[in-house]
Amino acid sequence: MPHRYFTTEVANGTAVLRGQDAHHLARVMRAKQGDTVILCDGKAIEYTAVITGFGEDTVEFTVEEGYPSAAEPTIEVTLFAGYPKQDKLEDIIRHGVELGCAYFVPFFSRYCVASPKKEEQKNVRYNKIAVEAAKQCGRGILPEVKLPLRNFGEVCRTFAQYDIVLFCYECGGDPLHRVLKEAQKSATDGDRLKIAIVTGSEGGFSAEEAENAAKAGAKTIGLGPRILRCETAPLAVLASVMTLTGNLE
Amino acid sequence: MPHRYFTTEVANGTAVLRGQDAHHLARVMRAKQGDTVILCDGKAIEYTAVITGFGEDTVEFTVEEGYPSAAEPTIEVTLFAGYPKQDKLEDIIRHGVELGCAYFVPFFSRYCVASPKKEEQKNVRYNKIAVEAAKQCGRGILPEVKLPLRNFGEVCRTFAQYDIVLFCYECGGDPLHRVLKEAQKSATDGDRLKIAIVTGSEGGFSAEEAENAAKAGAKTIGLGPRILRCETAPLAVLASVMTLTGNLE
Repeated sequence: MPHRYFTTEVANGTAVLRGQDAHHLARVMRAKQGDTVILCDGKAIEYTAVITGFGEDTVEFTVEEGYPSAAEPTIEVTLFAGYPKQDKLEDIIRHGVELGCAYFVPFFSRYCVASPKKEEQKNVRYNKIAVEAAKQCGRGILPEVKLPLRNFGEVCRTFAQYDIVLFCYECGGDPLHRVLKEAQKSATDGDRLKIAIVTGSEGGFSAEEAENAAKAGAKTIGLGPRILRCETAPLAVLASVMTLTGNLE
Repeated sequence: MPHRYFTTEVANGTAVLRGQDAHHLARVMRAKQGDTVILCDGKAIEYTAVITGFGEDTVEFTVEEGYPSAAEPTIEVTLFAGYPKQDKLEDIIRHGVELGCAYFVPFFSRYCVASPKKEEQKNVRYNKIAVEAAKQCGRGILPEVKLPLRNFGEVCRTFAQYDIVLFCYECGGDPLHRVLKEAQKSATDGDRLKIAIVTGSEGGFSAEEAENAAKAGAKTIGLGPRILRCETAPLAVLASVMTLTGNLE
C-alpha cells in the first residue's frame, strides 16, 4: 500500500509536500523520483501522486485526477463531550477520529469536575492528536477539535445546525436505532446527514440540563442498564451510529 | 439508589458480606442495621438485602427472593484479543466489561509484538480490573479474564464452543449486521446466543491465520475503510454487537 500524506497544495496536476511530512517521505522512507504515494487534500479528495523532484524542504509531484476518499463516512458526526478529568479527552479524540467523527466540541456543564485551564494551549495539543490519528487511520479529512463551550446552554444553542441531536442520558431514553432510523427517513435524499452526539462528563447531566436539551430539539437516548464511563459512552455511541448507518463495514 | 455488592454467600433468606466490601459498607458508607443494599451473586441473580448485624469483619443480611440482574445482556460474548503492547489490554478489559463482555481471552499470534511474560501474575491483575469494572458499571456477573493462549491455532480450536465466531480482519469481510442476523435466525428460540469476537494485536493477522480461522468455522467480518487500532477494534465491535442485539438501549 502506498504511503499517504495530507497536503492542501494540489493544483493543475501538480502537488507539493512540505515540512515534517516531506522530511518523512524523503529521509525516513527514502522515497525516490517516480515513486507513488497517495495525497489527500483534507477535504475528502485523494490523489495518486508520482514524485517528480525533491527540494530543500519539499517533495514535488504530478497528480492524476482526484477521487473521493473511501474512508469518509456517509454521515457527518459532531461529538459534544462533557469535559472529563485527566487526559481522557485525548483518548476520546484518538478513538473518535478512528471511528469517523468529524468535529469534537468539549463543553463544561453543571456536574463537570474539570474546569477551564489553558484551553487555547490544550486545544493546539488536541488538534495535533486529531491530525496524527487521522493520518494513522487513513481519514480523508482532518477532524477538528473546537475550543470548549463554557456551559450547557451554549451547547443547546448549536442544536439547530444538525439534522439530529442524540442526547445520551444516564437516566435512559429511546433506543438509538429507532431514533436514527426516523432521522434517516426524514432526511432529504442525497444529503449527508449531520448528526450530533452529546455525552456527559464523569458527573453526568442534571435533570434541568436534560430538559433543556430536549427543549432545544435533542432526542434523548438511553445506553442500557450498564453504567458507561464518560470515556466509554462516546465511543460506544459513535461505533453504534457508524454500524447502524453502514459506515463500519 | 442503594449500594451494590457481589457475594457468593447467599442461602436460606440470609446473606453475608466479608472482607473489603464489608469494611466499605460498614466503615466507609457507615451503614446501619435496617439499611437496604443490593447483593448480587455473580451469576446474574440479585437480591434486595436488609442489614441485620455487623461482625468483626462481616455484614449480615436477610434477603428477599432473588431476581435476574437487569444489567446482563441477552447474549454471552467472549472476546479473543490479540495480545497488545503496554497496558492496552487493561483498557480493553475495562471498556469491554462495561460493554457487556463475559469472557476475555488474550492470545499470542504470528505478528504479535508482545511476548508472554509473568502471565500468571498479570492474569491476577487483569481479573482484579475486570471485577472492579463489573462493580462500577453494575454487572450481574463477574467477567473472567483467561490465561493467554499461546498461538492462534489454540484460538481456532475453541471455535466449536460458540454459536458464532466473528473474526475481524483488516483486509475486510462481510458486514457485521448481516452475519449477526443470520446467526440470530439459526439460533434455537430462548437459548442465549454464544458469540465470540476475535480481534488482532498491533500487527494484525497473517493471511494464513485468516484462512485457518475461516476453516475453523469463523465468519470473517470487515470493519470498514478506516484502520482501527488494536485497542479500538474490540470496543467498536462489542458496542456494535450489543446495539444490533438490543443490548445497548
